[in-house]
Amino acid sequence: MRRQIPDVVVSRLPMYLRVLALLKAEGIDFISSRGLGSRLKMTPAQIRKDLCYFGKFGRQGRGYNVGRLFSELKQILGLDKQWSMALVGVGRLGRAIMDYKGFIPEGFKLVAAFEKDRNLIGKKIGGVVIEDFAVLGKSVKEKNVDIAIVAVPSSEAQNVIDMLAQSGIKAILNYAPICARVPRGVRLQGIDPVVALQSMTFYLTRV
Amino acid sequence: MRRQIPDVVVSRLPMYLRVLALLKAEGIDFISSRGLGSRLKMTPAQIRKDLCYFGKFGRQGRGYNVGRLFSELKQILGLDKQWSMALVGVGRLGRAIMDYKGFIPEGFKLVAAFEKDRNLIGKKIGGVVIEDFAVLGKSVKEKNVDIAIVAVPSSEAQNVIDMLAQSGIKAILNYAPICARVPRGVRLQGIDPVVALQSMTFYLTRV
Repeated sequence: MRRQIPDVVVSRLPMYLRVLALLKAEGIDFISSRGLGSRLKMTPAQIRKDLCYFGKFGRQGRGYNVGRLFSELKQILGLDKQWSMALVGVGRLGRAIMDYKGFIPEGFKLVAAFEKDRNLIGKKIGGVVIEDFAVLGKSVKEKNVDIAIVAVPSSEAQNVIDMLAQSGIKAILNYAPICARVPRGVRLQGIDPVVALQSMTFYLTRV
Repeated sequence: MRRQIPDVVVSRLPMYLRVLALLKAEGIDFISSRGLGSRLKMTPAQIRKDLCYFGKFGRQGRGYNVGRLFSELKQILGLDKQWSMALVGVGRLGRAIMDYKGFIPEGFKLVAAFEKDRNLIGKKIGGVVIEDFAVLGKSVKEKNVDIAIVAVPSSEAQNVIDMLAQSGIKAILNYAPICARVPRGVRLQGIDPVVALQSMTFYLTRV
């Protein structure tokens, strides 16, 4: 039986994965919790505490096996399969998201896009035909969409998120700068540049 | 004298701020570390540990003073002033960033934008005139830019980041899906939707 893993630990795992991918690329086979900590700007104790949720990876004196830890964390995060995504809102931001080259190599594939604007419906971008927002519920089910990306104006975002949740979508990535609500059992992540800016200003005030 | 504050603690402060703003809006004056923890999905012990870096906020039995904690964290993060930002790259993503309504209310103001595309140089969007990328170094100094946002294609991003660092910019928000490097003393934050997706798939595999 798995222990309950705190959200804050889960939220750090993608960063672990990123550092491990770099280590692999550098040909490093083993790394200590100190070495990982220095790359992740975390204490070795925190690293050990985080990773102990997932079983015994490290070996006294030798450190973590980079390749094995990478594969196991990938599996734990569910990244050993491909995930299907739907985009809602094909304005400037939506188009930029459709152009984004970072999804496919990581196993995320855009399979559907929805828009209200009649001039865009039916157009094909990067292999995806833009569909009428009105068919969203039916289409995400037919296409077995796992994750939805919301790129509509703030004023419409909560409505869209409600519709996605009603359509059975369990994970939503929200680009609108609102504090959105989701029903129990639905995961919501916001892409918020302000949060990223706010932790840099801390250091700017100390230069 | 301030204690050295771990980066991971700093990176959590904007989330504290967000929750405190909500509490203020709800008219809640005091909150326990348990209450904060439940909203932030963190343990009360972690909350207390994080906040103790910044002095005594809590009071035994009564909890944290929401308004005071909010103001102090805002000041600690350097958010009691306005920050000037420059955008590099005015393609689809760059235009979406220029349209983004979330910056101004949080004290971040776009004061400059740079592009290589001759068709865009000289155009005015939301009060900002797009400048030739060639004058970047000179212009960011004249305009006292604090933070740069990089929204150029991946292939150009590292070059642009190098130029920004050479121009004296100390904080860079990077939208390109690359693992960029910066010289010592320069802060870099990536906006990476994949990281946000990767922590949701953890939960999707457990539905």
